[in-house]
Amino acid sequence: MIQEAVQLAPALIAWLDLFGIAVFAASGALAAAQRGQTLVTFSFFALITGVGGGTVRDLLIGAPVFWVQDWRFAATCLVTAALVWVTPKSFWNARALDWFDAIGIAIYAVFGAWKSLTLGVPLLPAMMMGVITACVGGIIRDVLAGEPSILLKPEIYVTAAALASGLFVLLLWFGLPVLPAASLSALAGFALRAMAIWKGWAIPAYRG
Amino acid sequence: MIQEAVQLAPALIAWLDLFGIAVFAASGALAAAQRGQTLVTFSFFALITGVGGGTVRDLLIGAPVFWVQDWRFAATCLVTAALVWVTPKSFWNARALDWFDAIGIAIYAVFGAWKSLTLGVPLLPAMMMGVITACVGGIIRDVLAGEPSILLKPEIYVTAAALASGLFVLLLWFGLPVLPAASLSALAGFALRAMAIWKGWAIPAYRG
Amino acid sequence: MIQEAVQLAPALIAWLDLFGIAVFAASGALAAAQRGQTLVTFSFFALITGVGGGTVRDLLIGAPVFWVQDWRFAATCLVTAALVWVTPKSFWNARALDWFDAIGIAIYAVFGAWKSLTLGVPLLPAMMMGVITACVGGIIRDVLAGEPSILLKPEIYVTAAALASGLFVLLLWFGLPVLPAASLSALAGFALRAMAIWKGWAIPAYRG
Repeated sequence: MIQEAVQLAPALIAWLDLFGIAVFAASGALAAAQRGQTLVTFSFFALITGVGGGTVRDLLIGAPVFWVQDWRFAATCLVTAALVWVTPKSFWNARALDWFDAIGIAIYAVFGAWKSLTLGVPLLPAMMMGVITACVGGIIRDVLAGEPSILLKPEIYVTAAALASGLFVLLLWFGLPVLPAASLSALAGFALRAMAIWKGWAIPAYRG
Repeated sequence: MIQEAVQLAPALIAWLDLFGIAVFAASGALAAAQRGQTLVTFSFFALITGVGGGTVRDLLIGAPVFWVQDWRFAATCLVTAALVWVTPKSFWNARALDWFDAIGIAIYAVFGAWKSLTLGVPLLPAMMMGVITACVGGIIRDVLAGEPSILLKPEIYVTAAALASGLFVLLLWFGLPVLPAASLSALAGFALRAMAIWKGWAIPAYRG
Repeated sequence: MIQEAVQLAPALIAWLDLFGIAVFAASGALAAAQRGQTLVTFSFFALITGVGGGTVRDLLIGAPVFWVQDWRFAATCLVTAALVWVTPKSFWNARALDWFDAIGIAIYAVFGAWKSLTLGVPLLPAMMMGVITACVGGIIRDVLAGEPSILLKPEIYVTAAALASGLFVLLLWFGLPVLPAASLSALAGFALRAMAIWKGWAIPAYRG
C-alpha cells in the first residue's frame, strides 16, 4: 500500500531535488571559499556535498546513481560552484546559508525516505536512508576539509533530519497520503532545525 | 566445488551475524560515549560501525546491502546504542570491549570471505573481502571521530582479520568442509588478536 | 556513435590499467613507509590507493567492481606493497614517484571517462568519472593517513585530471577516433601536471 501511495508527484519532486542539490552544493563551495581554494576545489566540494548523500543512498538501496544518469545534477553543482567563485565573500552570510541548508535537510530527509520506500525498502531502513540522504554529503565535506564533523556537535542537525524522515514514514504507515505526509514532516524537521539555528537548541549529551 | 561447499548453515551464520553487528555497534556507541555525545550520534556511530564493513563488502561484491533489506540489523544497532546510552560509563570496561571486538573481528573476517565465495568471487579478492568486512566499520568510525585509525598502529588488528580470512580460504581450497574450516580460522584469528590484547604482540614496522 | 567508437583496444587498455594501479599502489605503500608502518598496513594502503578510484567509479556507473572479479589487480597491489617493503627508503625518490603518479593520473583520467562512456554515461558525468578514477584513491589514502588532502593544496593535480578527461570527452564529441583522442588528452593532462611538478605551476585561489 505504501508503495502505491508514494508513486506521486515526480515533477514536483524533481524540482525540489535540484533545489536541494544547489543548496548543498553552495555550502560545499563556501567551505572551499573559507579555505581560499581554487575553482577546481570549489567544484569538487560542491559536487561531493551536493550529490554525496543521495549517492550513498542510491548505492545502498541498489538504485542507479541519480546524477550519473542525468547530467543536469552535475551541471547544477558546477554552476553553483562558479557562482560562489565569482561572488565576493562579504556577500555570503553564514546565517543565510544555515537557513538554506535547513530547507535542504528537511526536503532531502523526506525525499530520501520516499525514494527508498518506492523501491521496497522496509520502514526502518527507509527512515535511515532519509537521514543519510540529508546528512552524508555534509559529513564527507567536513572529513575532506579536515574539520570536526557536525556529527560531533551537540547542535540539533542529524536529529532534525531524523525527525523529518521518521515522521514521514510514520505518517505513511498510519495511512496518510504522501503529499500531506511529506509536507508535514518536512515542516517539522525544518522547524526543529530552525530552533537550533535561532535559539541554539541542543539535545542532551551523555554524562556517563 | 568451493561454491557448493560453502552453501551451508545459514541459520547459524545469521545469528553469528547479528552477534557480530551488536559487538561492533557497541564499540561505535562507546566511541560516542567517550566524547560525551548525544543519543542521535550514539545511534549514527553504532550503525556505521556495526554495518559499515558488511556494507562496503556487499557493495563491492554486488550483493544487495544486507541491512537495507532486513530491518533487524538496523534495529540491533539502535537497541545497542540505546543500551550503551542508559548504562553508566563505569560499567564499561575498555578491556572487556576489546575482547568482544576480537570475537567480532574473527567471526566477521570468516563470514565476509564466505559470503563472497558463495557469490563467485575468486579466492584472493574473497580473502580481502573478509578483511574489509572485519575492519572497515572501525576505520570509518575512527575517521568520523577524528581519531588516528587502528590502521596506523603497530598493534595486531588487521593482521588478525587477514589471518582468519586467509586461513579460511586456504583450508577450503585444500578441500576442508566449510564448518571446520570456518571454526579453525576464526579461532586462529581470535587467538592472534588475543595475544595482541593480552601480551601486546605487534608486528615489525618498516625501518627503511 | 561515441559508444561504438570507444569499444576499442581492450588489451592495450588492460595493460595500461595494471600499470596505473601499480603506480598508485606504490604511492600508497610509500605513504605507509613514511609513517614507519607494518607490512599489513603497506598492503592495505597499496590496495586502497591502487584500486580506490576505479572502485568508486565502478560503483557509481553500476559496473561490477573490476578488482573483485579479477584477482590480478589485487595481486598487483600486494606485490607492489611487498616490493616497497623490501626496498630501502633511500632508494625512493619523492620526485620520481611524483612523475610516475603524473603518468598514472593522465592515463586513469582518460580510462575512467572511456569506461563510463562505453556504459552509456552522458558526457558531463563521464568526464567527472575520469577525475574520480584518477584522484579518489589518493584522497582516501590522505584521509586514512590523517593528512591534508591534495584537494586542499593550490598545486595543479585534480586540474590535470580534469583537463585529460574533459579534453578526451570533447575530442570524441567532435568526432575524433578513440585512440588519438585518448593519446592527445592523456598527453595534455600529463604535460599540465608536469609543469606543476617541474615549475610549481598552480592555479589562482579564491580571494573573496
